[in-house]
Amino acid sequence: MSERYDIAIVGSGPAGISAALNAKIRNKSFIIFGNDELSNKLVKANEINNYLGFHGKSGKEIQQAFINHLRAMDIKITEEKINNIYAMGDYFALMVNDKTYEATSVILATGIQYGKLFPGEEKLLGKGVGYCATCDAPLYRNKVVTIIAYSKKEEEEANFIATLASKVYYVPMYKEFVNVHSSIEVVNDTPVEIIGEDKVEKLVLKNKEITTDGLFILRDSISPGQLVPGLKIVDNHVEVDRLMQTNLKGCFAAGDIVGRPYQYIKSAGEGNVAALSAVSYVDSKEK
Amino acid sequence: MSERYDIAIVGSGPAGISAALNAKIRNKSFIIFGNDELSNKLVKANEINNYLGFHGKSGKEIQQAFINHLRAMDIKITEEKINNIYAMGDYFALMVNDKTYEATSVILATGIQYGKLFPGEEKLLGKGVGYCATCDAPLYRNKVVTIIAYSKKEEEEANFIATLASKVYYVPMYKEFVNVHSSIEVVNDTPVEIIGEDKVEKLVLKNKEITTDGLFILRDSISPGQLVPGLKIVDNHVEVDRLMQTNLKGCFAAGDIVGRPYQYIKSAGEGNVAALSAVSYVDSKEK
Ligand SMILES: Cc1cc2nc3c(=O)[nH]c(=O)nc-3n(C[C@H](O)[C@H](O)[C@H](O)COP(=O)(O)OP(=O)(O)OC[C@H]3O[C@@H](n4cnc5c(N)ncnc54)[C@H](O)[C@@H]3O)c2cc1C
Ligand SMILES: Cc1cc2nc3c(=O)[nH]c(=O)nc-3n(C[C@H](O)[C@H](O)[C@H](O)COP(=O)(O)OP(=O)(O)OC[C@H]3O[C@@H](n4cnc5c(N)ncnc54)[C@H](O)[C@@H]3O)c2cc1C
Repeated sequence: MSERYDIAIVGSGPAGISAALNAKIRNKSFIIFGNDELSNKLVKANEINNYLGFHGKSGKEIQQAFINHLRAMDIKITEEKINNIYAMGDYFALMVNDKTYEATSVILATGIQYGKLFPGEEKLLGKGVGYCATCDAPLYRNKVVTIIAYSKKEEEEANFIATLASKVYYVPMYKEFVNVHSSIEVVNDTPVEIIGEDKVEKLVLKNKEITTDGLFILRDSISPGQLVPGLKIVDNHVEVDRLMQTNLKGCFAAGDIVGRPYQYIKSAGEGNVAALSAVSYVDSKEK
Repeated sequence: MSERYDIAIVGSGPAGISAALNAKIRNKSFIIFGNDELSNKLVKANEINNYLGFHGKSGKEIQQAFINHLRAMDIKITEEKINNIYAMGDYFALMVNDKTYEATSVILATGIQYGKLFPGEEKLLGKGVGYCATCDAPLYRNKVVTIIAYSKKEEEEANFIATLASKVYYVPMYKEFVNVHSSIEVVNDTPVEIIGEDKVEKLVLKNKEITTDGLFILRDSISPGQLVPGLKIVDNHVEVDRLMQTNLKGCFAAGDIVGRPYQYIKSAGEGNVAALSAVSYVDSKEK
């Protein structure tokens, strides 16, 4: 049986890593999922002046200070993307493509997806449009699958789908060099609209159309309602109280995911609070 | 007529100074009250490990980083203690001993007073027991006044009272050298209880009793309900929503004053949010 952690933290931005520091200080067993870069939104900032203690630093410099902090406290990030989290009553099951992790409490710190959905995306969600290709892979055996990918990491997912599907189109939305299996057709074009009535029919791009059975949009973050079934969402954000508790017992949230303003130190402060609340929750269960 | 600021920030701990950074970045006219040391609670910490970005630093080192940040942004703290804040409808009046400041919005970031009240303090509050000696000074002309002071800064207040009262006893609760007017009797003893029925009668100390007409307890922070009449308090904390808005329109609060957990980065994050909310409020009034 797999180890059950006291706390699982999903997301490695300011909210998630601030939560991790406090879980560590409070001597809880925990795991933090995300990536070693921490957060795209951190790296991309040119100059940050409103994070108290740092002035005139670039996102990269502050990222380095955060990485140093994690190293000094011997905290390692598990580079894995959580696809689904299920409240099992006494614990939570966190699903990665091929693995399941268990934790008594969960802190959601996945940030939010800036920018709009594609026209047709919402209407066709669950009708051929999805956010986790590996999860739905069995449905697409010998079918045509199109993947819109926002990160080079998704190449692995595309390669896996290619072992089942009859044809895979891959639309990279990132600038790095694309390196996928030779059977996959890489489409360097800009998606415009998703077409279909009861089921997805085709993806319209600027210069081309692709007829497809399945369409996966692999963004950096999954919408929280999609990630955790049953989670209460208000105005696209996870509803929390002042102790960062969600409507699901033992499930806490922090950072952009819980609402505006979208700011680093607000996220870090909320991660701090969420961790202490999770610690109390875990302690109360052990009594 | 005195200048009316867009935002007045009361308190110079992590919550207040984080709010100041954001008020400055958003180009609002503002004033921040507190002290150049920033916060006692910052200076006193031996080692801080849960403020994301700093590891293994002392409170004094982090204080220095905060001071550098304020300097780099040319933010100066007004070293004055606000005694009362009145909601005047369109603006707020902030009272210092002999001056009044005006601001369209207010951010309360005074922290909280750790530790207990003295036995008898609550019962006799307003019945001879008070927190602002200068405010009530006229009531004590030719009477006996006792002052319990938690900071060397209160010596000035004692000297002023001595010009009116028939007798002033001064009980210093700090370690620095006491330097008050020679007519004042300095009592180096520990207060135990405040005695009186409808009115304060005496202060009992470990080794002595003082019969007195008025008793002022000058702590670093005044209770928020005392500071801002009409402010909604729940469980000794100022009630706020997720945007750090209190029940008084235009009045925001952040940091320890709004509730547990008492933490630096939680306070700084809330100061960030409160400032952005105050900015929106000011903008909405200007329309
Ligand atoms: C260009 C730019 C400049 C900015 N400048 C400023 C500024 O100057 N000041 C300021 O205060 N704010 C600024 N912001 C806003 C700030 O970046 C965000 O408020 C902050 O990063 C939010 O932190 P977070 O921890 O909530 O989420 P994020 O920083 O978004 O981090 C979430 C992390 O979780 C990971 N993740 C998501 N889903 C999963 C999953 N299912 N499994 C595993 N990991 C997952 C993501 O990959 C990401 O690494 C800026 C944003 C941008 C884009
Ligand atoms: C010894 C010690 C160690 C700590 N260690 C940690 C730690 O490791 N990690 C952590 O996260 N937290 C720690 N804390 C808690 C942390 O200090 C507080 O949560 C934090 O300082 C609260 O910030 P604040 O801005 O709300 O208020 P404060 O820091 O209390 O600042 C309020 C400021 O406002 C001023 N003020 C008050 N009233 C007025 C007025 N009427 N007019 C003008 N100015 C006024 C005060 O003089 C003070 O300077 C520690 C606290 C102590 C005492």
